[in-house]
Amino acid sequence: MNKLAVTAISMTLAASVPALGDDDKKRFGAVPVTMADVQAVSPALAKYTQSVIFDDLWMRPGLSPRDRSVITVAALIARNQPVEMPYHFNLALDNGVKPAELSEIITHLAFYSGWGNATGAVAVAAQVFAARGIGADQLPEASPAPLPLDETADAERAKRVEQNVGPVSQGVVEYTNGVLFKDLWLRPGLAPRDRSLITVTALVASGQVAQTPYHLDRAMSAGLTQDQASEILTHLTFYAGWPNVMSAVPVFKDVFEKRQS
Amino acid sequence: MNKLAVTAISMTLAASVPALGDDDKKRFGAVPVTMADVQAVSPALAKYTQSVIFDDLWMRPGLSPRDRSVITVAALIARNQPVEMPYHFNLALDNGVKPAELSEIITHLAFYSGWGNATGAVAVAAQVFAARGIGADQLPEASPAPLPLDETADAERAKRVEQNVGPVSQGVVEYTNGVLFKDLWLRPGLAPRDRSLITVTALVASGQVAQTPYHLDRAMSAGLTQDQASEILTHLTFYAGWPNVMSAVPVFKDVFEKRQS
Amino acid sequence: MNKLAVTAISMTLAASVPALGDDDKKRFGAVPVTMADVQAVSPALAKYTQSVIFDDLWMRPGLSPRDRSVITVAALIARNQPVEMPYHFNLALDNGVKPAELSEIITHLAFYSGWGNATGAVAVAAQVFAARGIGADQLPEASPAPLPLDETADAERAKRVEQNVGPVSQGVVEYTNGVLFKDLWLRPGLAPRDRSLITVTALVASGQVAQTPYHLDRAMSAGLTQDQASEILTHLTFYAGWPNVMSAVPVFKDVFEKRQS
Repeated sequence: MNKLAVTAISMTLAASVPALGDDDKKRFGAVPVTMADVQAVSPALAKYTQSVIFDDLWMRPGLSPRDRSVITVAALIARNQPVEMPYHFNLALDNGVKPAELSEIITHLAFYSGWGNATGAVAVAAQVFAARGIGADQLPEASPAPLPLDETADAERAKRVEQNVGPVSQGVVEYTNGVLFKDLWLRPGLAPRDRSLITVTALVASGQVAQTPYHLDRAMSAGLTQDQASEILTHLTFYAGWPNVMSAVPVFKDVFEKRQS
Repeated sequence: MNKLAVTAISMTLAASVPALGDDDKKRFGAVPVTMADVQAVSPALAKYTQSVIFDDLWMRPGLSPRDRSVITVAALIARNQPVEMPYHFNLALDNGVKPAELSEIITHLAFYSGWGNATGAVAVAAQVFAARGIGADQLPEASPAPLPLDETADAERAKRVEQNVGPVSQGVVEYTNGVLFKDLWLRPGLAPRDRSLITVTALVASGQVAQTPYHLDRAMSAGLTQDQASEILTHLTFYAGWPNVMSAVPVFKDVFEKRQS
Repeated sequence: MNKLAVTAISMTLAASVPALGDDDKKRFGAVPVTMADVQAVSPALAKYTQSVIFDDLWMRPGLSPRDRSVITVAALIARNQPVEMPYHFNLALDNGVKPAELSEIITHLAFYSGWGNATGAVAVAAQVFAARGIGADQLPEASPAPLPLDETADAERAKRVEQNVGPVSQGVVEYTNGVLFKDLWLRPGLAPRDRSLITVTALVASGQVAQTPYHLDRAMSAGLTQDQASEILTHLTFYAGWPNVMSAVPVFKDVFEKRQS
């Protein structure tokens, strides 16, 4: 049985959250919402979860299950929604996201979604990692050798930050041009394309369109195709809500057009 | 004793959260904040809760207690605030919101506030429904006969979506013109006016003004009066915070003026 | 040993959350994230927390540790992040924020971030206060004698609200010009400069730039220096995430320029 089929079946059985035994519940520290709970409140929501999200959205060819998991996990962290994290952190690992990558996603979003969002994700991930026997040997080093820096492109980026932010806050300039772009973004544990993917996702998922053009353009320069970018929006209608996606549409359109001209 | 008086008294006794016995606490799975907690942290906040919110805001004639409950519940779901949900889900049911309507509100906001927000609300609603003995017979069907579709108006709406979103994401177009407007919005368990009311509330409560004009206009075409729309803003100052309301004011003004001209 | 040194050492030991005994855990009602959890998920995040946030950001001279605590606490309440509240409420009290001031911050943000955010903070603060033996005698009165009102300035402010909001919602006007500015803002338990500081912080931390110019200008008129305002942005990069700060930069710039001309 191929991997996609297994994933599809496990989703069909589990729907949006797995039926957990008592031991599993203790593992997660909280009782997650079960499909029985969803049925007991809204048979319609259970239906949509199964037939629209799992049987349809996740099966669309525009993005791999692995990319959909990366996007979903990033959206949950950006939106600070721990209830769905145990299920989706596990699904992400099942879908091929490496523990080291999940670790890097959380670290990256500490900077883009705020420290408290990352801490909330740590609370869940620590339990998921423990339950799966994922130890320190599978995690990225604290201070690995950095990826090479594109000096020319970064100098231009840094200059723009100095011009725009410098007159307002030298502290923001220092941390932006230092720890953010010369340290975090050069960590090798997550491909640059994935780092941009989760940044764009976090921006759309929290309604922050202003920085989207820079990061979407960067994502596409790092290998994200236009079809994949379109499909991020499709995926996020359900996980970030329609209004956040609709507000991002004109911004994506603009970036698509500029890159084609 | 009329219903409003009973509601007022029960609010006076309970203030923002009921004093729960140990059994109730277990029911909710978490210990909600009690009025004693509020007093122990801020006697001023306790005073404002009682004298401004319950004795004044909820007693204003501009909206029925039932509509205020619909708005409050929608704001809590849109803002992902489970701490106040047990109290306000119960109050909504006491104020005449039918279990089937509460179920539909949660389902509807899965689409407008994101799936994780709905899941968070399910966790609380499942316990409230169980505690009140609300069973499957009181819930809307998963796939009921839909309300009639206004073909002309919807064709125009669909055309605009195709024009604006089509060049960016065909997936978003498909789900918008399919499951969202041809399925969710036609579910009969919630009056169209209420469906628009919670959509507008969710937009204002999460600071998403961009889609507000369309949905406020639709709400008013479905029977929401201008006085009621004004009073939504008044109610949300306290439940969504002043800044979200102040950002919505010019948008509401614009819609009011366009409808009068 | 001076106070800053003690603070620095206690931070070094505790990093972002203290190692709690079982009794402490019960006190908080939930098991907070420990530094061991952070290490088990991301050694990099643990490193950044220690070396960038605690050893560097909090040691910068631009704002006192007390002001940094006020800002951090306000950001957590505005962003509804209870996981980090037990640690930062305790740190704030250690850094010289008075219990009465913490009480007022929560009350103030009920109005600016919404009632549910304040209730979430109450749940944590009630336990922190109880654990530290902070009783009613250390809290602000519910209805103290108000600070004097600057009648001229407030009349102008009230007139603008009447002009802008009046045609849309008389209820919003009444509560704005009544309980908000003639009651809450005149409470003596928090200095006007601090009240403005937390309002600006809440606006930036939740991405609500529209009302920032008025409140930043008011903060600076009440004694916040431009250097301190710049440093708020630096501090919030980590606690509210880079995008919220980047969106606030042009707004701060505009206010700085208008005040200089």
